[in-house]
Amino acid sequence: MKKEQKVEDLFLEMKDTSELMVDLAYSALLFNDKKIAEEVYHLEDTIDDLYRCIQRFAVKKTSKKNPDMALALIRLADSIESIGDSAREIADVVLRDIEPHPVLKMSIRESDAVITRVNVLPRSILVNKTLGKLRLASETGMWLIAVRRGKKWIFGPDENTKIKSKDILIARGPEAGEKVLIKAAKGKLRKL
Amino acid sequence: MKKEQKVEDLFLEMKDTSELMVDLAYSALLFNDKKIAEEVYHLEDTIDDLYRCIQRFAVKKTSKKNPDMALALIRLADSIESIGDSAREIADVVLRDIEPHPVLKMSIRESDAVITRVNVLPRSILVNKTLGKLRLASETGMWLIAVRRGKKWIFGPDENTKIKSKDILIARGPEAGEKVLIKAAKGKLRKL
Repeated sequence: MKKEQKVEDLFLEMKDTSELMVDLAYSALLFNDKKIAEEVYHLEDTIDDLYRCIQRFAVKKTSKKNPDMALALIRLADSIESIGDSAREIADVVLRDIEPHPVLKMSIRESDAVITRVNVLPRSILVNKTLGKLRLASETGMWLIAVRRGKKWIFGPDENTKIKSKDILIARGPEAGEKVLIKAAKGKLRKL
Repeated sequence: MKKEQKVEDLFLEMKDTSELMVDLAYSALLFNDKKIAEEVYHLEDTIDDLYRCIQRFAVKKTSKKNPDMALALIRLADSIESIGDSAREIADVVLRDIEPHPVLKMSIRESDAVITRVNVLPRSILVNKTLGKLRLASETGMWLIAVRRGKKWIFGPDENTKIKSKDILIARGPEAGEKVLIKAAKGKLRKL
């Protein structure tokens, strides 16, 4: 429970978490990866917690002055929470051991924003740099969804996350950005 | 009804539409814009149509051979459809005439991916170029969600969409990308 957080921060975290859940769910489906699918389940607890905090805030702080506002806040939080629920249902397909139909993989691959998985080679310019320093999203359009390091995972990496040699990156973005990322990860590109 | 489409295309369109709906819903909230919110409603009809086509495909083509697969396809389509439902609920806050609480706007602004609105000036390098040519997403990380041209809107523009002088662009991406887009739209940047 995050009782002391400001309501802005609660909404911000809820929105970002719901978006990460959707990206992770599609990634789990595309790569048929149970670990990623399980993380979607864990994030649902986070989002449920945030939802309860917002409900409490809305009822305590706004309902006397403006009951409509309280309801609008709750309704909005409820809608964001249900995006998380949908992501969990997508992840479910992976956890239920039904090999996803090839057409599903294809529709993720050919989407406006593709999801890709790349291996970082030791000679890559990405190695030992933080995401904040690399500015991957603004230089290539690719958002990092998750990083696999050996048996560990970093889900929803932030600007302080440092990329290491041999990391496996799962990222989302335009096809042209994917090409740049693959080249950079292979060490075939010296500047983003 | 799109009876003749392949099921891959149906899933692809459904996924992209659900993502556009979420982006448009947050944009509508941030800019308190009813036109954008209404488009989310229209897109729900599209997504419902696609959902029904996938259900029909699943039952007709896969259920005899593999009933689990048919159920997995339907469940997946259902989850994607419910992302669209959540987006519609977010858009509802705008259509119900409740002035969104300032904290909500702030949490969209300060999210990992900001949503921004920029005016394209006549001297901008964006003018009279298609999105395909500009490669905005891979060069800046900014995805165009909608374009307002006079009283008309283009929702979910594609690579053939040409940007015109005086267009108002609604885009989503990293903060660093937003700065580049603003400069480019003002004509203060000659290359992306």
